[in-house]
Amino acid sequence: LSNNYESLDYDKIYNMIDLNKEPKSANREFVKNLSRWIVMFLVGICTGLVGVAVDILVETFSKIKYSLIAETITECTSKGCLWKPLVIWISSNIGFTLISLMLVLFLAPASRGSGIPMVKCYLNGVKIPKVIRIKALISKVLGISSAVLGGLACGKEGPMIHSGAIIAAGISQGSSSSLGFDLKIFKYFRSDTEKRDFVSGGAAAGVSAAFGAPVGGVLFSLEEGASFWNQSLTWRIFFGSMVSTFTLNIFLSIINGKFGDMSNPGLINFGRFQNTTYTWFELPIFILMGSFGGLIGALFNYLNIKLTKFRNRYVKNNLSNIAEGLIVASVSATVGFLLSFYISKDCQPIGRDLVSKYPVQLFCDDGQYNAMSGLFFQTPENSLRSLFHNPPGSFNPITLSIFCVVYYLLAVWTYGLAIPGGLFIPSLLIGAAWGRLLGLGMSRKFPNLHIDPGKYALIGAASTLAGVLRMTLSLTVILTEATGDISLGLPIMFSVLAAKLTGDLFNEGIFDMHIQLSGIPLLDWDPPATTEKLNIQDVMTHPVIVFREKETVGRILEVLNETKHNGYPIVDDSIDSSNGHFGLLKGLILRHQLITLLKRKCFLNNDVKLLPKDFREYYPRYIDIKDIQIDEDYMKLELDLRSYMNLAPYSLTEDSNLPRVFRLFRGLGLRHLIIVDKNNNVVGIVTRIDLARYR
Amino acid sequence: LSNNYESLDYDKIYNMIDLNKEPKSANREFVKNLSRWIVMFLVGICTGLVGVAVDILVETFSKIKYSLIAETITECTSKGCLWKPLVIWISSNIGFTLISLMLVLFLAPASRGSGIPMVKCYLNGVKIPKVIRIKALISKVLGISSAVLGGLACGKEGPMIHSGAIIAAGISQGSSSSLGFDLKIFKYFRSDTEKRDFVSGGAAAGVSAAFGAPVGGVLFSLEEGASFWNQSLTWRIFFGSMVSTFTLNIFLSIINGKFGDMSNPGLINFGRFQNTTYTWFELPIFILMGSFGGLIGALFNYLNIKLTKFRNRYVKNNLSNIAEGLIVASVSATVGFLLSFYISKDCQPIGRDLVSKYPVQLFCDDGQYNAMSGLFFQTPENSLRSLFHNPPGSFNPITLSIFCVVYYLLAVWTYGLAIPGGLFIPSLLIGAAWGRLLGLGMSRKFPNLHIDPGKYALIGAASTLAGVLRMTLSLTVILTEATGDISLGLPIMFSVLAAKLTGDLFNEGIFDMHIQLSGIPLLDWDPPATTEKLNIQDVMTHPVIVFREKETVGRILEVLNETKHNGYPIVDDSIDSSNGHFGLLKGLILRHQLITLLKRKCFLNNDVKLLPKDFREYYPRYIDIKDIQIDEDYMKLELDLRSYMNLAPYSLTEDSNLPRVFRLFRGLGLRHLIIVDKNNNVVGIVTRIDLARYR
Ligand SMILES: Nc1ncnc2c1ncn2[C@@H]1O[C@H](COP(=O)(O)OP(=O)(O)OP(=O)(O)O)[C@@H](O)[C@H]1O
Ligand SMILES: Nc1ncnc2c1ncn2[C@@H]1O[C@H](COP(=O)(O)OP(=O)(O)OP(=O)(O)O)[C@@H](O)[C@H]1O
Ligand SMILES: [Mg+2]
Ligand SMILES: [Mg+2]
Repeated sequence: LSNNYESLDYDKIYNMIDLNKEPKSANREFVKNLSRWIVMFLVGICTGLVGVAVDILVETFSKIKYSLIAETITECTSKGCLWKPLVIWISSNIGFTLISLMLVLFLAPASRGSGIPMVKCYLNGVKIPKVIRIKALISKVLGISSAVLGGLACGKEGPMIHSGAIIAAGISQGSSSSLGFDLKIFKYFRSDTEKRDFVSGGAAAGVSAAFGAPVGGVLFSLEEGASFWNQSLTWRIFFGSMVSTFTLNIFLSIINGKFGDMSNPGLINFGRFQNTTYTWFELPIFILMGSFGGLIGALFNYLNIKLTKFRNRYVKNNLSNIAEGLIVASVSATVGFLLSFYISKDCQPIGRDLVSKYPVQLFCDDGQYNAMSGLFFQTPENSLRSLFHNPPGSFNPITLSIFCVVYYLLAVWTYGLAIPGGLFIPSLLIGAAWGRLLGLGMSRKFPNLHIDPGKYALIGAASTLAGVLRMTLSLTVILTEATGDISLGLPIMFSVLAAKLTGDLFNEGIFDMHIQLSGIPLLDWDPPATTEKLNIQDVMTHPVIVFREKETVGRILEVLNETKHNGYPIVDDSIDSSNGHFGLLKGLILRHQLITLLKRKCFLNNDVKLLPKDFREYYPRYIDIKDIQIDEDYMKLELDLRSYMNLAPYSLTEDSNLPRVFRLFRGLGLRHLIIVDKNNNVVGIVTRIDLARYR
Repeated sequence: LSNNYESLDYDKIYNMIDLNKEPKSANREFVKNLSRWIVMFLVGICTGLVGVAVDILVETFSKIKYSLIAETITECTSKGCLWKPLVIWISSNIGFTLISLMLVLFLAPASRGSGIPMVKCYLNGVKIPKVIRIKALISKVLGISSAVLGGLACGKEGPMIHSGAIIAAGISQGSSSSLGFDLKIFKYFRSDTEKRDFVSGGAAAGVSAAFGAPVGGVLFSLEEGASFWNQSLTWRIFFGSMVSTFTLNIFLSIINGKFGDMSNPGLINFGRFQNTTYTWFELPIFILMGSFGGLIGALFNYLNIKLTKFRNRYVKNNLSNIAEGLIVASVSATVGFLLSFYISKDCQPIGRDLVSKYPVQLFCDDGQYNAMSGLFFQTPENSLRSLFHNPPGSFNPITLSIFCVVYYLLAVWTYGLAIPGGLFIPSLLIGAAWGRLLGLGMSRKFPNLHIDPGKYALIGAASTLAGVLRMTLSLTVILTEATGDISLGLPIMFSVLAAKLTGDLFNEGIFDMHIQLSGIPLLDWDPPATTEKLNIQDVMTHPVIVFREKETVGRILEVLNETKHNGYPIVDDSIDSSNGHFGLLKGLILRHQLITLLKRKCFLNNDVKLLPKDFREYYPRYIDIKDIQIDEDYMKLELDLRSYMNLAPYSLTEDSNLPRVFRLFRGLGLRHLIIVDKNNNVVGIVTRIDLARYR
């Protein structure tokens, strides 16, 4: 486990200032509550708009790119200058990918990858530096558009979740330290607790905009993040998700020239399936498909983690990161080119592909197009829709199997590159390919069953995605909402669950594996079974560093400089640590409180009381202790901590076992748990990192 | 608040026996986990089957009833003996209603009403006597079928939730004390914690079977019940819900003769809407409709609560309950009869009503039927579908308005009668009527917009239901799943949210109001705003009754006989309560533990240690202290409680405020919270009832 990550403060500090405060007027409470709704409304709108921006970017440039290449191909197929389109293809891929790489490497490293793991950690209570920043948002939006345009095997949906989270954090704080402005509104939301609530809403809005799945978004937030289900929070999240998909829908409809027609609820729509009935004897097949999806998903994760370990070791500096990215970009183009031009002989009558806008004839007869190029030669979202909806027979089995294997390898290679990029679309695409292949096989074997290969493509896609991500409830709902039809909900459910159960036999979901690899101290849902017999004593940190209620400035400075802990128990004067006891527990003080108190020189007059807003002033980037200079003369002065310390920090007696500690941590979102003996003397302290060790 | 309700024990007792126990083998853990899935599978199947049973009962008998009446009417319209069908109608209503009343009053009073409030309380942690019993299930299933057959304004959907919950409790315990059998399986599930998990799964399965809404079921369980969102539990619940709708689907398909065609996912299907598109300028209308639904829902709740108060005062004994029930039954029949026969002149060409099976001609011309009778003269589910799907123009505005008002009053009157019966269908029906009316009005006003009144009926139905129940997320999903199409999800969402917000200005949801009226100590989601300034001292019970680690049998017997508390803190010997302190906190012992120890005469030899299964033996109906006879000679003997007491009961120092206590209670599902001073001396105790006081 790495020590670089800090926890969020979810527990409200309850101290003398609170006690003496006037009770909040009902009026202020109402305003605060209304602001929460307003913030979620704005978050919904902005997330929707970001989705629109990404869509416009990708659509505009891919139109230019693909029509240029298509023209050159048509021109060159007869003339024999096929190297020309290849060069154009490769160089456009390289160009776009380079933009993406630069953004990630030089502007915001936190925007790398899908962003879901980071949001997940944040919601779990781990602060990963620079994840929730406006820079990361810019890099994410531009980077993901260029990565998709660069022809890489990645999708623009996953990153929407991260974008939504950043937007929510930004709006709720009413300020941005990167941009250097502070609107001075929503000041009461400047705490980790409130911010987390908004971030979970933003993530949901992101899902909602990406897939047109507002309910799926809420469930995603809950499944991946929240541990405490709070009804009114859930409603706000739901509201934000609604607004987000609605905004996207209106704007995309306007842009597509169909004002008033609400047919673009998400960045990716699977489109309407013609034939959505199924018979119950198909269910076992769906379950088997799910298991298969689980298998190849597990293999995917295994390979990708191996690769990531290799990358962590050898691909470290910016140069090698860029080199690798550009190699992948050129390989993606070359492979697509070679496959469609020289291997595939899959010619189909033009018009069969309902989605592709740039059918290329290549070596096919007139009036026909090359089906393999149809898959490589458009945005992955469109390829997916082709696989779902093209009429039976529009791909031949060889095209499908080659495409599936090649894309699988490309996707394994791509995830983890220094670009923003999601896993949803590649997994869906791989699954759709083998699913359709299976459907094809079945409809040849049982021609009188009228099997629609598109339906099987959908189930294959769901299975593979579930095999890679291992989400269940939220994934089912997201996919069902993305098809726009509930009838296939049950088949999707069964296959998703089967994929999850099968895949879990081998390894964890890819995001969890990546999180574990980076050593982030994530707390699981349940206490691990192995901890049953562990006692608190085995877990807690033993010599506890404590303060007295009135402590000298010298000691505080010394302790803060020498240790990096974020909370110190406060005990009465009778500290006698010889017997392993560190005094009677009186309270808990946080590092940032101490720093603020020192900075404000409160020791000069202990009667001047700071207010909560004084402590919030530097949130979320508190001053470092190194930046605090205090005159030598003051070192002997005493700072009275009694009004500021948390009067009722959570504590547990040393008799408890680990699962109990775990439940307390998880259930209440704690950061520090103080362990006391029968007489309430401090004997130890437990933090997140002590628990995350047991997995 | 009433003192009749006990809490459930959610906190695991952590004592010496646990400490000395061998760690559970991975194998046993696996078996236990597998059993959980098996139980949920069985729960799903059984809940589905119960749904099938209800459906068969209602369909069979309503066919007999309505075809008999229809024949008599046709015969009598010309002959002028119209009193005849009226008599048949009234007497069949009375007959069926009587069955329903008898079941509730004499077999299982707990089966009265919708059952949702009771399930909600159970999941919240309140044990309501006899709610989770097989008798209640039988009475529920038969009673609801007869109530629907009795022509009352109630639905069979809500009660499915209660049925599912009972089934889950029964199966997970592998025994039924009412039926007097004990399969001796799943013994490790005999604890409140495990049982609650299954009950929430059962409730979800019930929703799923009722509406064909597996995701809605899971959300219902979460929204109404669970406070702690546990991922693996959610998956199991989801699985159970899937199985339940699937079972129902298969069996109903077989019964309807369409083997293999999966088109009956729930007891009620709204059926497919032809025209599911909407333009964004319709959304404000939907929001307004939602607000209107909120208004009439609030009025509904207000009237119904007034009526319930009246009922609680004057309709107390069985006889008056029966009388009221039968009056409602006859009035329902008479009103329906009079309206269709003498008031409505709404004649429609036969074939227009796509759903009704018994169109009656009455005074209409040949080839026509009376539209008002089409509404009263079938099961409410079918009337609902008529309102949703009949072509524009198949009801005239007067029919709709009269039906809406009359049914509203009937529904207000019916809910709370001594019958099982849900509120879903009546609310939907009322809403569908005014929604369709509005749609009609709009399509006359703007004929070129091609407004489909059926869509407006759906939105009206959703709004009214949300106005009455005040659920949001789960309701949206349930209704969307019941339409089988996602496209109308967004309009439903907006109207549901508007209804909720509007209604909340006036009062709470009907179930909450009923719960509050019965004085059940339900804990809300969040600490009420008024408690901000309250200190623990204002809340806790002050003279605490405590035991010493070794306590005489005499004192234990005395205390148990004289108090009704369910938990007693254990303190060291130095009890000196003169200064308001009751000794150093050592642990907590539960009432049922003490009773078992006395029953087993453990004081005779304190070295014999009882095992957890010994304490489970009498679960869930523990022996009463009155039934324990102990020889006078033993009174002086000491019982050693040290091995049995909970070694780490949750405690909090007296400095905390109420919201903190509240969060701890809600987050961890506590039953007892011990309040200690700085030195860990017991000074007070807080239980559910102390907190529920603040609302
Ligand atoms: N006041 C303290 N005295 C002694 N040890 C402490 C104290 N506070 C924390 N520790 C221990 O130090 C280790 C890491 O400390 P740290 O305070 O950084 O906690 P953490 O788990 O990283 O969480 P965070 O940094 O977000 O607060 C843990 O093992 C923890 O138990
Ligand atoms: N050991 C005790 N000594 C003194 N008062 C107690 C004790 N236990 C509970 N009480 C108080 O008695 C009142 C009601 O007691 P009771 O024990 O029945 O709790 P409850 O809230 O009804 O929950 P439940 O009956 O389910 O345990 C509460 O105000 C509670 O604070
Ligand atoms: Mg740390
Ligand atoms: Mg009680």
